[in-house]
Amino acid sequence: MSKTNPGNFFEDFSMGQVIEHATPRTVSRGDVAVYQAVFGPRFAVQSSGQFAEAIGYRQAPIDDLLTFHIVFGKTVPDISLNAIANLGYADCRFLRAVYPGDTLKSVSEVIGLRENSNGKSGVVYVRSSGTNQAGETVLDYVRWVMVRKRDQAAEVGDSVVPDLPNSVPVEVLGAALPKLDLAAYDFTLAGAAHRWGDYKAGEKIDHVDGVTVEEAEHQMATRLYQNTAKAHFNAHAMKEGQFGARLIYGGHVISMARALSFNGLANAFHIAAINGGRHVAPCFAGDTIYAWSEVLAAEPLPGRDDVGGLRLRTIATKDLPCADFPDKLDEKAYADGVLLDLDYWALIPR
Amino acid sequence: MSKTNPGNFFEDFSMGQVIEHATPRTVSRGDVAVYQAVFGPRFAVQSSGQFAEAIGYRQAPIDDLLTFHIVFGKTVPDISLNAIANLGYADCRFLRAVYPGDTLKSVSEVIGLRENSNGKSGVVYVRSSGTNQAGETVLDYVRWVMVRKRDQAAEVGDSVVPDLPNSVPVEVLGAALPKLDLAAYDFTLAGAAHRWGDYKAGEKIDHVDGVTVEEAEHQMATRLYQNTAKAHFNAHAMKEGQFGARLIYGGHVISMARALSFNGLANAFHIAAINGGRHVAPCFAGDTIYAWSEVLAAEPLPGRDDVGGLRLRTIATKDLPCADFPDKLDEKAYADGVLLDLDYWALIPR
Amino acid sequence: MSKTNPGNFFEDFSMGQVIEHATPRTVSRGDVAVYQAVFGPRFAVQSSGQFAEAIGYRQAPIDDLLTFHIVFGKTVPDISLNAIANLGYADCRFLRAVYPGDTLKSVSEVIGLRENSNGKSGVVYVRSSGTNQAGETVLDYVRWVMVRKRDQAAEVGDSVVPDLPNSVPVEVLGAALPKLDLAAYDFTLAGAAHRWGDYKAGEKIDHVDGVTVEEAEHQMATRLYQNTAKAHFNAHAMKEGQFGARLIYGGHVISMARALSFNGLANAFHIAAINGGRHVAPCFAGDTIYAWSEVLAAEPLPGRDDVGGLRLRTIATKDLPCADFPDKLDEKAYADGVLLDLDYWALIPR
Repeated sequence: MSKTNPGNFFEDFSMGQVIEHATPRTVSRGDVAVYQAVFGPRFAVQSSGQFAEAIGYRQAPIDDLLTFHIVFGKTVPDISLNAIANLGYADCRFLRAVYPGDTLKSVSEVIGLRENSNGKSGVVYVRSSGTNQAGETVLDYVRWVMVRKRDQAAEVGDSVVPDLPNSVPVEVLGAALPKLDLAAYDFTLAGAAHRWGDYKAGEKIDHVDGVTVEEAEHQMATRLYQNTAKAHFNAHAMKEGQFGARLIYGGHVISMARALSFNGLANAFHIAAINGGRHVAPCFAGDTIYAWSEVLAAEPLPGRDDVGGLRLRTIATKDLPCADFPDKLDEKAYADGVLLDLDYWALIPR
Repeated sequence: MSKTNPGNFFEDFSMGQVIEHATPRTVSRGDVAVYQAVFGPRFAVQSSGQFAEAIGYRQAPIDDLLTFHIVFGKTVPDISLNAIANLGYADCRFLRAVYPGDTLKSVSEVIGLRENSNGKSGVVYVRSSGTNQAGETVLDYVRWVMVRKRDQAAEVGDSVVPDLPNSVPVEVLGAALPKLDLAAYDFTLAGAAHRWGDYKAGEKIDHVDGVTVEEAEHQMATRLYQNTAKAHFNAHAMKEGQFGARLIYGGHVISMARALSFNGLANAFHIAAINGGRHVAPCFAGDTIYAWSEVLAAEPLPGRDDVGGLRLRTIATKDLPCADFPDKLDEKAYADGVLLDLDYWALIPR
Repeated sequence: MSKTNPGNFFEDFSMGQVIEHATPRTVSRGDVAVYQAVFGPRFAVQSSGQFAEAIGYRQAPIDDLLTFHIVFGKTVPDISLNAIANLGYADCRFLRAVYPGDTLKSVSEVIGLRENSNGKSGVVYVRSSGTNQAGETVLDYVRWVMVRKRDQAAEVGDSVVPDLPNSVPVEVLGAALPKLDLAAYDFTLAGAAHRWGDYKAGEKIDHVDGVTVEEAEHQMATRLYQNTAKAHFNAHAMKEGQFGARLIYGGHVISMARALSFNGLANAFHIAAINGGRHVAPCFAGDTIYAWSEVLAAEPLPGRDDVGGLRLRTIATKDLPCADFPDKLDEKAYADGVLLDLDYWALIPR
């Protein structure tokens, strides 16, 4: 029997199945530096240990999305090696700050399975979580992917589609954020004066800047997370595919849009939850990513007077500046050039 | 009002204005590794903790130019976002060694303003300094940039042009350098036998090697410094510009020339001051950078017998080997292919 | 006399000559992160401090090949700056784990010299070793390179060709590996169930995945090692060469093939020795690297019941998937597309 991992096919998954993923990974300031070099984030809390410690962290935490990518990357060889498409995310909550020196691992539970009517594939729903070396959960999220069947004739069980929330309720946000000493939060050093109360539902912010992505950059970032999806790395095989080129990991666009969003959201330094996300179109090397955000809601956090929640939609585009806020056209279609529609909660000082 | 940073225009600056820049940044060995990967420096003091500690440092300091780029990068969103050209540097002094773990921030004071006769722009002179977490100044320099006016009709004050030194006097050099234990300085491990006394004014050194710069490399380095100048990152917008391509950050050429200068200046491990610099021509991805240096002066440092100063001009070129020392042709013009003319003080064991 | 390093020519070497190489280098987690970003290794021991410590290391060791490249890189300016070809390796043994914080330096001894009959060049055999800050040898290997003569007329000594082993004997393997606590070795987290006893001589494993190499990636990795060979960095000069392009450092292909070999050899986490290696064809940016391995032998290690040795041949190809195991055709020729034929010992839990 082959010793190489063929990945799981649709009929290999079963309801309630728990998969512990390889490879555990100790995060370091080296990872933070590579992430910095690829995306250029400027949020003060993650950039400065002194700033983070002053407001209540024990040191500068790593970027929330770096945690997400590392936890996600580990699930790829078991969950999505034979995926046709990554369909969605839901109920993604950041539960604990991650610091350099922490060791992360990931586990997934199959919570839904639905065969497609063509009998060739099916949708697998997994709840994945990342834990640190103390066994504490740092991140928990649901994703669903369309996975090929190995054998079309294989019998599969009844369809189970999990009930997923449209958004993470504000009541559960903030677990990863220490109580902030706001008196020590220096808004000048953080880059902007805007606090929670300055943002209103309906407000739209053009993040202005655009950044071009290079093959070496997205490959280096995606390997940093030990994500092995061949679509991102193998130009020889992808040449024969639908697009004729390597596809950039969707999370790369998320991280770039997040870094760009500093310009307008400088104090919204922590992502507390991702309500959902859609990769509207593929991104390729050479594309220039722009982004804009809409404030969907500004909600207080029960029991906390230090920070409030901003529910944001961040839209990323390619080769399309966002002064006119290119958006969804209807339930299904988006304006040309839109890459990403991400719905999430960020926390920001009050 | 927009929450995004439009940058300052010429009429927004006022004499004596002090601007505290975002984002503070804790430097790490991760940053050192990325810098190493992009430029390949080989100076022993910055490369080996053991070497540095033996001669009197408390650990390996970070590369002086990495300090420069980080301090400089923070000033970009406030000073040069609307710049037409970066015109010059003066009186740049490295005042304290920077170690991994130090947190850097930057502040600038406007020390000169001169409107251009066309009424469309003006020159802004700032003295910028970088400080560490203890509030100690690690770097201090003047630069001047040509900045657009937002409104041509805006009234501006009288011209003030600061009096700037042509070079940093040798008397003030060396603050960032501990007293060296020269007995512990291993010239073999450092890569060359040449000491201060081996260099003479007028000597020219071809650094021989050439290195080609890639888009991903300069983007990663420049983002590492949190420099946000759009010219370096946005291929989509730059396609419409004068050059049709992303411009490489001038500091990238400085760092590459410095790394190349190891071949001939292996023991000149510390840049104590930059007297001035000129970016003669733009650099683009695909260019191969070569460099040569001329010794302008070799001066003892008052009160120090461990090191001496070499005042150097390092010329960087593109696609042009430097065996013939391509140079300035007259006061204004340079030989084709010259990118950079940098005048600085390096310190070297006696 | 020039202060730049012209490198040594064939007639500059003498039997028994010992060359201490510049530049010492303190390895950091930053280097590990850059290496991770470029190659994407997934072996649990090097990836997770918690995993490594559980089985007996004092922390996660750095990748064996990162040690190799750093030690090797230092030898380039003295040994192979004027090399025509890197001909081979032998008797390469990893003798001690290297951890972040260790400072490495390299020394070489000339153990063989043989002038070519054309009088223009000769073969130089050196035994190079890397030591840490405590003076302990971490790596020791022989390589031989063909080096140009500066002066065809120069007199050279008698030919001496050292007697080199075809392979490192199993008896000397394992010095760099602490006694493992196998009860603490988590095969699920490590990514595969296969132990030493599951591999048999003659077994072939297709590592399946392919990864495309970019210019920025190989340049950044090779500079990380302070390897200065101009063939890897200077597009301007190489345009005029035989291939018209930068040649990728052969060690880059080794590291990529090793990272790919995780898929099939997940528990073979330590390279104990390299018996020999051949760079069959040059590799260029844009090439997609695939790999397969053959188990040459599975041998117990005298005195150790925790791990066994697998003697492996790993073949790397370009733009050629390895399901059909493309191989040597006869003593001299290889199938089209083969880049590398590497013979080494890996250790794996029993």
